[in-house]
Amino acid sequence: MNPKHPIPLEFDFHFDGPWGTELASTMKDLASDVNAEPGLLWKIWTENPTTGRAGGIYLFSNQKHTDRYCRKHTTRLQSLGTSGIVAHSYNVNFDLTTMTRGEL
Amino acid sequence: MNPKHPIPLEFDFHFDGPWGTELASTMKDLASDVNAEPGLLWKIWTENPTTGRAGGIYLFSNQKHTDRYCRKHTTRLQSLGTSGIVAHSYNVNFDLTTMTRGEL
Repeated sequence: MNPKHPIPLEFDFHFDGPWGTELASTMKDLASDVNAEPGLLWKIWTENPTTGRAGGIYLFSNQKHTDRYCRKHTTRLQSLGTSGIVAHSYNVNFDLTTMTRGEL
Repeated sequence: MNPKHPIPLEFDFHFDGPWGTELASTMKDLASDVNAEPGLLWKIWTENPTTGRAGGIYLFSNQKHTDRYCRKHTTRLQSLGTSGIVAHSYNVNFDLTTMTRGEL
């Protein structure tokens, strides 16, 4: 059994832009806050102008920190009037993940 | 603009087990096949005995290889009688991802 229990988390929601470098300029402060989130190992930021959705794929070091961030980010998105919020966290099969170069 | 364009992909579907180390033993050959998939950077294997779902979070090096694997894996799952298959791929915001330690 792997002593670490990192938890992947996915967020996806309706978003009207901006996108790309303009989004990055707008979201710098949020990215700094996310980067300082307790237990966060990494976040990949996702965006899709065609479907009008954005979000992220995260890896947290444990369930407690995942749950805390999930509540915090849902509240933040709702306070901005965001709709269509989907959030999923997952358990990891470590043995299989090791075989396919997943870094945990 | 980052010269690399890796694509995250999520698969999630109904699954009745086995789980954990027993799943790992059963899926070793599949994991070897996945590990040899053209364009695959990594796969994290996900499982949830409570909800009866399993799947994976992948990072592929480009859209072409993502689409190819998506078709191949969907066909494979359907041939096994798998139901409830959900597959999503995403575009990445590189500037923001770099700020939150996402390794691409």
